[in-house]
Amino acid sequence: MLSLDQIKDITHESPSKIVLLVIDGLGGLPRPDTGKTELETAHTPHLDLLASKGICGLTDPVSPGITPGSAPGHLALFGYDPIRFLVGRGILEALGIDFELKKGDVATRGNFCTVDKKGLVIDRRAGRISTEQNAELCKKLSKITLEGAELFVVPVKEHRFLLVFRGEGLSGDASDSDPQQIGVAPLNVAALAAKGKKTAKLANDFVTKAKWVLVDSHPANMVLLRGFSQHPDLPTMNEIFKLNPAAIASYPMYRGLAKLVGMKILETGSSVEEEFDTLAKYYAEHDFFFIHVKKTDSTGEDGDFDAKVKALEEIDRLFPKIIALNPDVLIVTGDHSTPALLKGHSWHPVPIILYSKWSRADHVKEFSEPACSSGYLGRFNACHVMPLAMANALKLTKFGA
Amino acid sequence: MLSLDQIKDITHESPSKIVLLVIDGLGGLPRPDTGKTELETAHTPHLDLLASKGICGLTDPVSPGITPGSAPGHLALFGYDPIRFLVGRGILEALGIDFELKKGDVATRGNFCTVDKKGLVIDRRAGRISTEQNAELCKKLSKITLEGAELFVVPVKEHRFLLVFRGEGLSGDASDSDPQQIGVAPLNVAALAAKGKKTAKLANDFVTKAKWVLVDSHPANMVLLRGFSQHPDLPTMNEIFKLNPAAIASYPMYRGLAKLVGMKILETGSSVEEEFDTLAKYYAEHDFFFIHVKKTDSTGEDGDFDAKVKALEEIDRLFPKIIALNPDVLIVTGDHSTPALLKGHSWHPVPIILYSKWSRADHVKEFSEPACSSGYLGRFNACHVMPLAMANALKLTKFGA
Repeated sequence: MLSLDQIKDITHESPSKIVLLVIDGLGGLPRPDTGKTELETAHTPHLDLLASKGICGLTDPVSPGITPGSAPGHLALFGYDPIRFLVGRGILEALGIDFELKKGDVATRGNFCTVDKKGLVIDRRAGRISTEQNAELCKKLSKITLEGAELFVVPVKEHRFLLVFRGEGLSGDASDSDPQQIGVAPLNVAALAAKGKKTAKLANDFVTKAKWVLVDSHPANMVLLRGFSQHPDLPTMNEIFKLNPAAIASYPMYRGLAKLVGMKILETGSSVEEEFDTLAKYYAEHDFFFIHVKKTDSTGEDGDFDAKVKALEEIDRLFPKIIALNPDVLIVTGDHSTPALLKGHSWHPVPIILYSKWSRADHVKEFSEPACSSGYLGRFNACHVMPLAMANALKLTKFGA
Repeated sequence: MLSLDQIKDITHESPSKIVLLVIDGLGGLPRPDTGKTELETAHTPHLDLLASKGICGLTDPVSPGITPGSAPGHLALFGYDPIRFLVGRGILEALGIDFELKKGDVATRGNFCTVDKKGLVIDRRAGRISTEQNAELCKKLSKITLEGAELFVVPVKEHRFLLVFRGEGLSGDASDSDPQQIGVAPLNVAALAAKGKKTAKLANDFVTKAKWVLVDSHPANMVLLRGFSQHPDLPTMNEIFKLNPAAIASYPMYRGLAKLVGMKILETGSSVEEEFDTLAKYYAEHDFFFIHVKKTDSTGEDGDFDAKVKALEEIDRLFPKIIALNPDVLIVTGDHSTPALLKGHSWHPVPIILYSKWSRADHVKEFSEPACSSGYLGRFNACHVMPLAMANALKLTKFGA
């Protein structure tokens, strides 16, 4: 695989447009009674037509067998090797709630938890307290003051919150306080490198003070911290691909991931139809669009096979809105598989269609896992999606003399 | 992928023979009226028979989406990762005209160009002057003397020439003087590393003197230099594969690339028939033969679909000359695709047939892009071609205990 610097050397601007539709958790597993996956079950005439006109394949977002989180799954599709470019859990939590990070901030994921009289963790999620109660407690924790850094405590959902330190000399090189088991005390946060010392001290001070603030808030009478991290500071898609990229995503996490690589975030509604209309509205202003559809993943995580099928059919029904724009390169794929049978992300490779005037159609006539497995694209790492998109948009020059 | 050192550890000599036929620019795109590529259109019964006896696949010379230059395309087929082993433009220019490089030489590509009275470039190719005029001007430029290095100025074609510095302490770490645009002055050559200082000084002195030599030669009244580079000094195929390899190529560039990896260059004529006869003539003397056919690429670059089809049919007609030798391993592939529709190199993967007694034939019965896409070899990086060839020639031992 070429390095981003090598790719940068062969990219050039041009008026052609690339549309990347990411159907979150696209890939699935066959339901035993029908032998068909969600995608095989769904009636998707428009996607099937695109499959027959373009080239198909299966991608591995990270590598065979590896189940990707949302960050690696998307970074790979954006052209960034997710094995090299890591996004910490704290940063991802911040992206997920649209928290405006500043350079140098350290973010960490917090859990409210329950400790017994000896201080041993007896419930790592504090009985999944309500989001409302979480917000109240975060308001209290926000009043804590620390020497040498500002502090933000922001509720996320149920027992989860975001903690951000802002100040000079911080680093993500600090260990978790979350012991990841019950019956033991929360761990002391330790510096994992010299530059992590200040962060570790701030974290331990925060935990000590939080314990007193929460002393009467049983079951949420303690906090656990994990995933101290800083913004990964990635080169932008504009620097590498010379694109003017935009993102259309109704969920903050995916807007956050798009922001990480320098995409402009377009305002959109929460439905697929509104997302596709947003593409049409801004189509003249950018040459690369990332559109994210969430419902296929959340229905898969719920284990709701039929709802995932319906979500796929809804995308297909609205798909002519994208086709009407006639993008030079149109890619439809997912960031990972989320089989309803597994109720979660999985390692199964993800179907992909790439259509362009120059894509050299294969014999695949249907958008499904088995059909895509015999397409021209073969089975390949998702990091190659962007170079393929750029090539088909005629935005790449030769590599080497 | 194993490193060359790791491969070296498992190779051994044996009497078996490998023939690698490289059909330059082999892959194509379907003509809209027939839906068939050049290779699908061509009547190639002998190649089809080989496809049905051997195993087929599609290769990516560099990686998916990347369009290779001639050097990366060939180095990959010779077993050298083209992302790691780079051949500079200057060196390739030298190889292209059979210039005898010495260790330590720095070569660069030169363009005659036109500058206006203010010294701004108004034509980067000096109106594509004739090759004859080019030769005369190179003769004049050859008389320039520089302190600390010998200098060679050799005409290539139209506005292009080769400039070589020979002396102590040279390096390719020098920036281009070619601004790659008009309306600006040629750039000063700068050292890109400390060891490039002498080269940069020589280059700038040369340009200053060349300007005076060319002052009355409008439109060729200035020069632009780019791609300062040194011989990449690759380990030879003999060192790595323990082969005694030979090259049959009618174009100097490909003889040059073969020389880079230590092949012996066999004298041959310019036709495909003469090339194939050369193989027969020297068949007893070597255990690896690289045969290069150029016409498929040049007709593709001309956008002449029918001529490319004819070139393929000519290869097929003469192919029994190779079959008659009954090589232990016979590989037919290309260094990249050159679809007539794109009039240039492209990123599309390249069909390949590998035949040996041990290749475990697949169901592919035809040599074409779609047929090869469903072969046993799948879609794979061209760097694996040599290990596959060596394995099928039973010249590799086990890797690891």
